[in-house]
Amino acid sequence: MMNTAVQDNAVGNFLLIGLGAMGYGMGSSLLRAGLGVDGFDLNGETQARFRAEAGRDRPLVEAADEADGAILVVVNAAQTREALFGANGLAAMLKPGAVVISCATIDPQQAIAFEQELAEKGILYLDAPISGGSARAAQGKLSIMASGSQEAFEKAQPALDAMAETVFRLGDQAGPGSAMKSVNQLLAGIHIAAAAEAFSFGIAQGLDADQIMQVIPACAGSSWMFENRGPYITDGDYRPHSAIDIFVKDLGIVTDAASGAKLDLPVSQAALERYRAASAEGMGREGDIALMKLYAAQSGIDLPPKRYEDK
Amino acid sequence: MMNTAVQDNAVGNFLLIGLGAMGYGMGSSLLRAGLGVDGFDLNGETQARFRAEAGRDRPLVEAADEADGAILVVVNAAQTREALFGANGLAAMLKPGAVVISCATIDPQQAIAFEQELAEKGILYLDAPISGGSARAAQGKLSIMASGSQEAFEKAQPALDAMAETVFRLGDQAGPGSAMKSVNQLLAGIHIAAAAEAFSFGIAQGLDADQIMQVIPACAGSSWMFENRGPYITDGDYRPHSAIDIFVKDLGIVTDAASGAKLDLPVSQAALERYRAASAEGMGREGDIALMKLYAAQSGIDLPPKRYEDK
Repeated sequence: MMNTAVQDNAVGNFLLIGLGAMGYGMGSSLLRAGLGVDGFDLNGETQARFRAEAGRDRPLVEAADEADGAILVVVNAAQTREALFGANGLAAMLKPGAVVISCATIDPQQAIAFEQELAEKGILYLDAPISGGSARAAQGKLSIMASGSQEAFEKAQPALDAMAETVFRLGDQAGPGSAMKSVNQLLAGIHIAAAAEAFSFGIAQGLDADQIMQVIPACAGSSWMFENRGPYITDGDYRPHSAIDIFVKDLGIVTDAASGAKLDLPVSQAALERYRAASAEGMGREGDIALMKLYAAQSGIDLPPKRYEDK
Repeated sequence: MMNTAVQDNAVGNFLLIGLGAMGYGMGSSLLRAGLGVDGFDLNGETQARFRAEAGRDRPLVEAADEADGAILVVVNAAQTREALFGANGLAAMLKPGAVVISCATIDPQQAIAFEQELAEKGILYLDAPISGGSARAAQGKLSIMASGSQEAFEKAQPALDAMAETVFRLGDQAGPGSAMKSVNQLLAGIHIAAAAEAFSFGIAQGLDADQIMQVIPACAGSSWMFENRGPYITDGDYRPHSAIDIFVKDLGIVTDAASGAKLDLPVSQAALERYRAASAEGMGREGDIALMKLYAAQSGIDLPPKRYEDK
């Protein structure tokens, strides 16, 4: 490890690509753990804010030269590929032995391809999708579903320790990490749609949304997503904490991969159709629980009014 | 309250109709709380076992004459109607002022009708569906979604205290209790089907069922049902802890009530179709998680082998 002015106390150096709701919190957790972090985001304002916190402001090529690895917290496989192999791609900048920690939800076959392409440059790859939401990201308490070589895990260890409460080691090559994330997204996507149907149905039956939110978490119908998204419904909050289009993408990955295995998933498919319908209605960038509006438009139920303060 | 030999220590007397997995445990909780309980079940062996525990063995008409109320833990609205208004129906036996505590999952409109019909005899009605599973029933820790008159709640209080950890008071007449239970069953039914799709998809992607069961409860895709039914999947246990046909009925109630409100619930409908398909394949009396077999038959994935001891 080099010792320059910008990293006197750093116990390791990582690039962090993508400073959205998840990435920014993960970066804060890395800094808190004493790691040196060079942050990059297409949004210049966000990038500047992070760089001020991190005490590091230098070009990618310079940062890459001394990085132990790069953490990619981008949206999808296309953005991951661009970050790795596009113009200014990391594959041409990272040193042999550095590790790419890939956190986007992508098809397992894509993860396998990235691992192989990077291996040709001597760069390690950890298939490491994340779960837990932005609050846990900021606390360094994510769950990470990871698979990759022993070397990749070792190189990534300081960053994983800083970002995660639990790191599941699911195999010694890329693929299983992304497969497990897809299993999680299948469930999460259905559960949000189920919550929208449950609230819509209950309201249509004369129940109060606050009553539903009070009762169900004590009953067998509860889910992580019900408890997390329910308050957005009762507050009429359709801001994009996590957007409709995320599940258009993630449930699309699930059903595509399933049909490759000759497996029909009709409940996943029904949920996917709801997200697609909401996106087609122009709600793609609203919060995923905006599915509620589809049911309300159809049946004429009254949605809970907005009762939160805009920031 | 009368004081006869059979109830010297009883602080209240209740009939308990239906001694299945839920009812038997609820009866044990009532006895532990010092209540006098007369138990009835179509299965003579189960009934005899409960009566030996309860120290009470007498005909319905005699028990009804001194009962503060009757708790109905039967399967559906038809059985509830039979118990109340059939030959030997409770409506003709209970004293005015006694309370019927109705626990079956039924259409809210049915609950309203039962309340009205019993009111003509001066009998109180508590719309009181239950949630929590057989283990919590036996511990007296159910959640009860209840609605009814002040008088009905007061008369039922000693039994509710004995059976429930939480009693939600959802309104002052029948209907909301059953509506909330339907909301719960919508979620529970979808979540079980989602668990089956998640395990099937994960196995098709090369993941191990035990790995899935280890990871998902720590992630945002978890649900009460995933955590409860998952171990049956990993153990290959398709015994009828709770049967496929329960959700053929309960999701049928949901989609019927929804269509009455001009509300389409495509995710609930997709889940219902899975239960119906499993029932049509002869699995109606197997555990609800036998949905797994539908996916396995279609895609050729290997289900986890049986690894539990038959009783």
